[in-house]
Amino acid sequence: MTDFGRTTLPFCSFVLDGERHVGVGIGTQVLDAKAALPDHAALFADGSLDAFLASGPDTWQAVRDALLAHEPTEHLYDAQYLHEVGELVLPFTVADYVDFYASEHHATNVGTMFRPDGDALTPNWKHLPIGYHGRAGTVVTSGTTILRPNGQRRSPDGEITFGPSIKLDIEAELGFVVGVPSALGTPVPISEFDKHVFGVCLVNDWSARDIQAWEYVPLGPFLGKSFATSISPWIIPLAALTRARVDPPAQTPTPLPYLQTDEPWGLNLEFVITLNGIEISRPPFASMYWTGAQMLAHMTVNGASLRTGDLFASGTISGPETNQRGSLLELSWNGTEPISLADGTTRSFLENGDTVAISAVAHLDNGERLELGEVLGTIVSQP
Amino acid sequence: MTDFGRTTLPFCSFVLDGERHVGVGIGTQVLDAKAALPDHAALFADGSLDAFLASGPDTWQAVRDALLAHEPTEHLYDAQYLHEVGELVLPFTVADYVDFYASEHHATNVGTMFRPDGDALTPNWKHLPIGYHGRAGTVVTSGTTILRPNGQRRSPDGEITFGPSIKLDIEAELGFVVGVPSALGTPVPISEFDKHVFGVCLVNDWSARDIQAWEYVPLGPFLGKSFATSISPWIIPLAALTRARVDPPAQTPTPLPYLQTDEPWGLNLEFVITLNGIEISRPPFASMYWTGAQMLAHMTVNGASLRTGDLFASGTISGPETNQRGSLLELSWNGTEPISLADGTTRSFLENGDTVAISAVAHLDNGERLELGEVLGTIVSQP
Repeated sequence: MTDFGRTTLPFCSFVLDGERHVGVGIGTQVLDAKAALPDHAALFADGSLDAFLASGPDTWQAVRDALLAHEPTEHLYDAQYLHEVGELVLPFTVADYVDFYASEHHATNVGTMFRPDGDALTPNWKHLPIGYHGRAGTVVTSGTTILRPNGQRRSPDGEITFGPSIKLDIEAELGFVVGVPSALGTPVPISEFDKHVFGVCLVNDWSARDIQAWEYVPLGPFLGKSFATSISPWIIPLAALTRARVDPPAQTPTPLPYLQTDEPWGLNLEFVITLNGIEISRPPFASMYWTGAQMLAHMTVNGASLRTGDLFASGTISGPETNQRGSLLELSWNGTEPISLADGTTRSFLENGDTVAISAVAHLDNGERLELGEVLGTIVSQP
Repeated sequence: MTDFGRTTLPFCSFVLDGERHVGVGIGTQVLDAKAALPDHAALFADGSLDAFLASGPDTWQAVRDALLAHEPTEHLYDAQYLHEVGELVLPFTVADYVDFYASEHHATNVGTMFRPDGDALTPNWKHLPIGYHGRAGTVVTSGTTILRPNGQRRSPDGEITFGPSIKLDIEAELGFVVGVPSALGTPVPISEFDKHVFGVCLVNDWSARDIQAWEYVPLGPFLGKSFATSISPWIIPLAALTRARVDPPAQTPTPLPYLQTDEPWGLNLEFVITLNGIEISRPPFASMYWTGAQMLAHMTVNGASLRTGDLFASGTISGPETNQRGSLLELSWNGTEPISLADGTTRSFLENGDTVAISAVAHLDNGERLELGEVLGTIVSQP
């Protein structure tokens, strides 16, 4: 059970008496936003975050101020508006889903494994945040069962086979949720990042490495990713993370002007990945080479428009240490070094019945620690 | 002005007295579906095709039967329901957009240009229809102005520059429009293609080749494509194309069972591309290696779900002849052989002010010829 404290104020969509409501996390409970904030009830009318996301930064702040202005003992948090956290559903309508590749350590690990004779990073990697579009329709909320996907793969001897993926993997990522749309043909400058992005969620971008390896040249990942992407049910406002902002790693070469800003949009977030309750990694988001603000500026520099509900994820978060890697591909070095779990078993990739939980905390500059929730999924076999 | 005849019965979304209505093309006019078909009015209530698409094959056929049962002189086509074609808008809410790469001639041309020392086709090409996700939010309707995108590109001497694309291109494609959704985890068998797909449209998948070339390794096309994809405003029901169905080219090696069917889903469609009114190519859809039914079966074989409004496009349609190529990249062989236009100018890629129109006709097995409309766009420079 996540304890969100009093200042995080994350948003979710929860089920109450069979109906969908917008909720705000207060400690370990959930506040019914429409009931508790009558002045803003229209924003929460349909039980999704869509209207609130679209309302923009002034309204986001006004709602946050209203929530912060009251103590739990006062009217706002009368027991009638606070509920136990029950069923949480997908909190917003996902418009487009983009996945980036912003960790230098992850990209270096992958490049070293798959292109051992070449440069680990492709020539473009330090010039632009590489990204691609994923399948928005298969973004699911935490807890959704993940069916091991079928697909084509090529065996080491060159045979093409079909069946359940034998290299099913996780990718621990941070997702950015767009609230305010933009017009087609008008890039969003990097300075406008927090005018368009409301907040973040935790992402597990499930990946079938064997399917992906066979299909991805030349047009990129497709079925190796599109079967499911899980997100945490709680969307954390950027406003809650102001004191977690840090300078990102130095960037050499200096990126083009549209990717430059003096505003530090690195985030001091520590992820924890557990497999069946056993910790297997602790990726540090502060080590990411490209920031969310740079991703947004890049994604729109060609004039591509934003819609409310666009989700863009960071790509796998891997730190410099072996126990900071955000995928089993890296943790087991593509199966050549299976990891040992505290329960006596080993893993190269996911087995049926495995439950993966990815959680994160923000480390603030005043020493405080904010819990950010978790995204969880269990693998089941083909029927 | 397209003349759709009496049996094509394509659907659109048109503006009448400032409101959006669902329309059916009858000859060169448009029928107001809600007004003319009171028994089915609920399907057309919001002026988009969304509810009708979702209603499924029995309802699609019932509506088609109702439209076919009446002669233009009878009540159904009383002048009160027939209108001149005015403003046409995006006819449905695009859910996910997937772009395939299904023309062997196109893939061979591209491979020959960019990998002159290797095999033209990648090893996976004849085993699966290669595809990737594009940006659904920037799918626009015919006539929308196309702003030349800015972006990063690498010059031949290795310098990274930024500015308006200097290799702006077209891709003539056929798009398939999904009506009936499917459940996550349940593949759609190839035999169910026409239970889920309502119809087709014409697609111009604008491409900035210089941006794409620099960004696409290793995760595929992104900003080189995401600035705009134009579709024709008319969606042609598969039911209108029954007599245009043909066997696709023989496939060697035999694809895996999930990609096999005895139902011929090749389509004898002839595309025509004009640049500023001058014909530059005539791509034959019947030459496509992979069919729409195979694309759908592949796209869902990993359990990925479908939503109403999913759009998947064929990829560039190129035939075996030089005047059947569906992109300027191929027609000008990446700029090394500029094409000469009948107005005395030449082109390697698109210039500002150029208008591209892609139209198509279906050749039926009884010798009839059905017009399928067109998708049009004009390039404008950065402000």
